[in-house]
Amino acid sequence: MAPKLAPSQPLSGFADMLPAQARAFHDAANRITRVYERYGYGPIDTPCIFLYETLAGEQGGEIDKQLYRWSQGSKDVALRFDLTVPLARYLAANETQLQFPFKRYHLGKVWRGESVQQKRGRYREFYQLDFDTVGTDSPSADLECLLIINDSLRALGIEKFTIRLNDRALLNGVLASMNLSDRSTELLRIIDKLDKVGEAGVEAELRERLGLDESSLAQVMDYTRLGAQSDAEAILSSLESRYGANELVQLGLGRVRFLLSGAEKVIGPGRVKLDPSIARGLGYYTGPVFETILDDLPDVGSVCSGGRYDDLASSYMKRRLPGVGASVGLSRLLAALESLKIGDLRQKGPDIVILPLPGVDLSEGALLQRKLHERGLEAELYPQSVPGESGVKPKNLFAYAAARGFAIGLILGTSEVEQQAVTVKDLIGRQQRDALPLAEAFAWIEQLRAAAKEA
Amino acid sequence: MAPKLAPSQPLSGFADMLPAQARAFHDAANRITRVYERYGYGPIDTPCIFLYETLAGEQGGEIDKQLYRWSQGSKDVALRFDLTVPLARYLAANETQLQFPFKRYHLGKVWRGESVQQKRGRYREFYQLDFDTVGTDSPSADLECLLIINDSLRALGIEKFTIRLNDRALLNGVLASMNLSDRSTELLRIIDKLDKVGEAGVEAELRERLGLDESSLAQVMDYTRLGAQSDAEAILSSLESRYGANELVQLGLGRVRFLLSGAEKVIGPGRVKLDPSIARGLGYYTGPVFETILDDLPDVGSVCSGGRYDDLASSYMKRRLPGVGASVGLSRLLAALESLKIGDLRQKGPDIVILPLPGVDLSEGALLQRKLHERGLEAELYPQSVPGESGVKPKNLFAYAAARGFAIGLILGTSEVEQQAVTVKDLIGRQQRDALPLAEAFAWIEQLRAAAKEA
Repeated sequence: MAPKLAPSQPLSGFADMLPAQARAFHDAANRITRVYERYGYGPIDTPCIFLYETLAGEQGGEIDKQLYRWSQGSKDVALRFDLTVPLARYLAANETQLQFPFKRYHLGKVWRGESVQQKRGRYREFYQLDFDTVGTDSPSADLECLLIINDSLRALGIEKFTIRLNDRALLNGVLASMNLSDRSTELLRIIDKLDKVGEAGVEAELRERLGLDESSLAQVMDYTRLGAQSDAEAILSSLESRYGANELVQLGLGRVRFLLSGAEKVIGPGRVKLDPSIARGLGYYTGPVFETILDDLPDVGSVCSGGRYDDLASSYMKRRLPGVGASVGLSRLLAALESLKIGDLRQKGPDIVILPLPGVDLSEGALLQRKLHERGLEAELYPQSVPGESGVKPKNLFAYAAARGFAIGLILGTSEVEQQAVTVKDLIGRQQRDALPLAEAFAWIEQLRAAAKEA
Repeated sequence: MAPKLAPSQPLSGFADMLPAQARAFHDAANRITRVYERYGYGPIDTPCIFLYETLAGEQGGEIDKQLYRWSQGSKDVALRFDLTVPLARYLAANETQLQFPFKRYHLGKVWRGESVQQKRGRYREFYQLDFDTVGTDSPSADLECLLIINDSLRALGIEKFTIRLNDRALLNGVLASMNLSDRSTELLRIIDKLDKVGEAGVEAELRERLGLDESSLAQVMDYTRLGAQSDAEAILSSLESRYGANELVQLGLGRVRFLLSGAEKVIGPGRVKLDPSIARGLGYYTGPVFETILDDLPDVGSVCSGGRYDDLASSYMKRRLPGVGASVGLSRLLAALESLKIGDLRQKGPDIVILPLPGVDLSEGALLQRKLHERGLEAELYPQSVPGESGVKPKNLFAYAAARGFAIGLILGTSEVEQQAVTVKDLIGRQQRDALPLAEAFAWIEQLRAAAKEA
């Protein structure tokens, strides 16, 4: 009786990456981290499992329902649910060995189990890619975040996107002017849904859940509409004239002015847009906040978001560590590139495959492969079977080559080996040149590759 | 009262990577995966959490004591403990979307909790970096493994290492010739310890635990000493003459001869050495097995090991999938590079830091940074504080620059900005040239960097 097979599929909310997906993911991550490196950010790595106490920090019960948490021996442990908490504790645990301002990026998996049913397309295990500068109040670090977001998306081949900017101090000052400070947390949470539920939805929630009177409601809704003005100067003037008496508003306006003009100076006009309705969640943001919208796919939401905080690691150390950072939504970005049909992320293996025919000394294929590698060419060797074992027929070799997307097939038969030659098959142009001496073969390969690049 | 701080240190057996370590790790991983890519291996990714049933496969209880396993809702789940089981089930789960022979690499974390006390320096969470070709019996795939190991270590700057080769069929044939097949599992496990416990230790264990008689003992010990002969041909002749009557021995000898001569042909003599005493664990290996020893650090053990298997995914699918692969011990390799003081892995950030002095428009620093980036130079901008906030004094800037290992400091004061110039400080040669026009500054930077490279 055949043994029962074990289940091979991932759990619900977990996923394999197929080869083409994984290549695109690696390529995208490399392009973005190269941008980070250029600005002086270096990688770090932290464990995935921590004591529950460590991950909970001060947040306590808020994150509990999302945590993968269990008892390991006598220890209450859990998997990290983001890369910010692991960073905060990393700074405390390694303080004496780090230089501040500390600039790091981190690409890693995080886990969020949702106890209710899984939302469509939401994963329980997914990658985050964060960068932060910690240990400085400087607005130049805020500006750097905007520049990095700009460069990162462009590195993926995305040109049509807008970074929406706001400032939490500005927001808080405005709410104080409206005498709504006591309800700011809930109010910002509702305003944040503007993109999802629309003006009517936000108005209804503000009325029903917060019990705002009609005058306050009109003020709040007027405020959220300021961003619709296309001219930043007009928005700034409106804010200044309506709420300028408030000190927080002045602070926020100053920072926003600097960021708008700095971004324009360094990367040109139009990329960063002031939107006073953006709140970016709740948590720890205290200064500028920003999100990034793809102009042709606004519905997917922000593909890169972040902001400035006052004190990152207060749960773990006494030193105050202000800073600024952002998180790139790599999975969203990859899905967007696919649906927009833009970008040139790598999805395939080498262009060249070596196909040794039955009867050829197997190490001859490896020797040819080495010569190609030495010329800087990637080349794969089809593993031909030994005589007597189940051999693969030449026509199957070609089926394999086509399925894998090779552009050039190098056929090595016994006569080719004898003549120190190789038969070159152009799998795209469907031409073939038999038994070319190696030097001629390499020259033709270079020509075919150059032609393919131009096409 | 100050709130109690949450614990920030990792759990025992878990570790942070400090910035220099993490950079070296990334650099090493990139160099090695570029080698894999050159040979046509592509990345894949799998979840970290699976049903216990999936991870246990046929191995059942053997792995239980190492597993991180818990109940998640109604599900019995666990963290992966290697990258081979996740590959086996990946092949079954995605069979119709893959081309065979399937070549993949996988860099990822695995978890092994040991219920007994933790061994010194053993981690419970660590990276593995595996590559495999699955779906072929071809010895050319075996040869490719040896070539890739060779290229990977050389990519890290390691030149003095030896790949030790054996074949499980050869081993099994020899044991059959000695009438010891029934005790082969235990016997190989003991022989495998030769490096650790020495000849006397192995002899004692064979006598006491397996109860070998003196004649069998002498035969086994004689066999383990064959590898001491420096000439492969001499070892092969000895094996042939003593055990050549056995069919498995013939099969193994044929494969070993091919791999030795193939490796010599492609990468030159001396790299791959036949060692008939190598067994490489037990599990699923059926053909050639190999391990890699650093000539100057033999005691750290194998830094890259692998072998051929007959049927990888039999727990998950009916299709027979033979193949061959290896796993690189990245952490061991990095520790070895450090202790041998060789290699040139990247451990630092950019060479260039821009230091804006108080009073300078903060976006001027970013503008200069962009001009350097456009020239292909990495450059970090020190985040200078705004007037009125806690400013950093110039001398602290230099302390920061020294601690971070910058080679070149670019000082941007108000007069420099006015003159479209920058003061360049050679932090290694300790020279300074004041207020250089930008074009001259860039030229001097290039000179300094060229000089630093040659030094």
